[in-house]
Amino acid sequence: MKLKTISETRSHGGTQGVYSHLSSATGTEMTFAVFVPDHAPDAKLPVVTYLSGLTCTHSNVMEKGEYRAACAEHGIIFVAPDTSPRGDDVPDAAEEYDFGKGAGFYVDATCDPWSKHYRMRSYIESELPALIAAHFPVDPLRQSITGHSMGGHGALTIGLRNPDVFRSVSAFSPIVAPSDVPWGEKALGRYLGKDRAAWREYDAVALIEDGARLPELLVDQGTADNFLEDQLQTRRLIEACATAGIAADIRMQEGYDHSYFFISTFMADHIAWHAGRLNA
Amino acid sequence: MKLKTISETRSHGGTQGVYSHLSSATGTEMTFAVFVPDHAPDAKLPVVTYLSGLTCTHSNVMEKGEYRAACAEHGIIFVAPDTSPRGDDVPDAAEEYDFGKGAGFYVDATCDPWSKHYRMRSYIESELPALIAAHFPVDPLRQSITGHSMGGHGALTIGLRNPDVFRSVSAFSPIVAPSDVPWGEKALGRYLGKDRAAWREYDAVALIEDGARLPELLVDQGTADNFLEDQLQTRRLIEACATAGIAADIRMQEGYDHSYFFISTFMADHIAWHAGRLNA
Repeated sequence: MKLKTISETRSHGGTQGVYSHLSSATGTEMTFAVFVPDHAPDAKLPVVTYLSGLTCTHSNVMEKGEYRAACAEHGIIFVAPDTSPRGDDVPDAAEEYDFGKGAGFYVDATCDPWSKHYRMRSYIESELPALIAAHFPVDPLRQSITGHSMGGHGALTIGLRNPDVFRSVSAFSPIVAPSDVPWGEKALGRYLGKDRAAWREYDAVALIEDGARLPELLVDQGTADNFLEDQLQTRRLIEACATAGIAADIRMQEGYDHSYFFISTFMADHIAWHAGRLNA
Repeated sequence: MKLKTISETRSHGGTQGVYSHLSSATGTEMTFAVFVPDHAPDAKLPVVTYLSGLTCTHSNVMEKGEYRAACAEHGIIFVAPDTSPRGDDVPDAAEEYDFGKGAGFYVDATCDPWSKHYRMRSYIESELPALIAAHFPVDPLRQSITGHSMGGHGALTIGLRNPDVFRSVSAFSPIVAPSDVPWGEKALGRYLGKDRAAWREYDAVALIEDGARLPELLVDQGTADNFLEDQLQTRRLIEACATAGIAADIRMQEGYDHSYFFISTFMADHIAWHAGRLNA
């Protein structure tokens, strides 16, 4: 598992790096960002992985997410992967921002031509954590996951499917029921095919309905988010968690939108919340 | 003084706005960013103006500067102007990142063809503060100024020329002696002409040598900054302040570079330092 260093920059009492590697999951060169706070020579630090939303790469949250001060304070390594495979060989949906490159939806695609490279589930669940553990001073037993919008969907579904791997799960304005909203129906229908039964493991509300459980959950959602009604439908997560008895702290944030102006506002809160679980 | 609202977004318990107006100083439409923390209805808040560096607009610090949490905490309004006039009518130096658009150097140009629009000194010293005072809940008697690189040069020179206007002055990796470094010689020579005597009011070290004084000064400078030796020459500011008896806290930050990864690291420190002076 070779790693190529693209850049390493000192920031907030740590190192913000950007790296790439040839991924066996996607068959492409994948780029990701990692922030490592200064630490004792033999320390093994807990990890928070942040999954980004539609159209993003590793760099949006790296530039605008305002996570480094909190990660340095709590001794957390922060990992920000890309949102899809990239490269000229990777099929894309030209001029569709919500499908193809930048829109992997954290699934392992099963339909042609997507199934060859669009394997972001395997990449995030298996390959990337192993790569991170091999190259960075992490404690693989202390991992948490979060994300925004499509990446909030990714964090919730990956967290719900792997409760023994991720100690805590949070999300910013997540897509909570992709099977029933335009972004999700388009993506799951084309990546996974028409059989909606196959979509349920990629749908947080469906996973909870089918019995998946987390001890608790933290979600922030802006009330001025243009996508709230049509695409995000936070109330469905609130209802599913209530029915399932999941202690979900789902905070409707008055006046906030879907942008990094919103995410950065609550990022330090999420880092501190995860740190409380990871450092317990 | 009419103001056009381009966007207003809720962030960190306040409003991050972007506005534009037709500037009488530059004769062009000028865009700037303002962050206003939530405040009591009749409150008048102090202001920190941040001047950006080469190639930047208002948006670089707005996206990457990480100032909002600190400004909200201390009740500070943060103003981020552009770095030059813009528009098709404005003369530019094609393919020169360090002259023309994006490189106004905070001077009032006296040489053709620059003198018509490149009047960033008047814009920052006079027009913009009056515009801000007319449209935002500020206390004009409580103003401070900071900036990065070319904007650090702007903050130092504007602060040194107007010690009664700005209660405190700080800078991130400023150009301290532009008369003697390539960036500054090029810009001052073309905006102001060959007579170097005219450059001295746009040169922080020269201003101090000529008698300008500030009660104190805060500067952060990364030791891994590629521009340190050739363009910034921090040691010359250290020497000038020592000779002049200016209480300058000039901090060489080990391993930090010239980027917003560096600026964002120390931004909250600078905001808190200014707040201590503004809210005293």
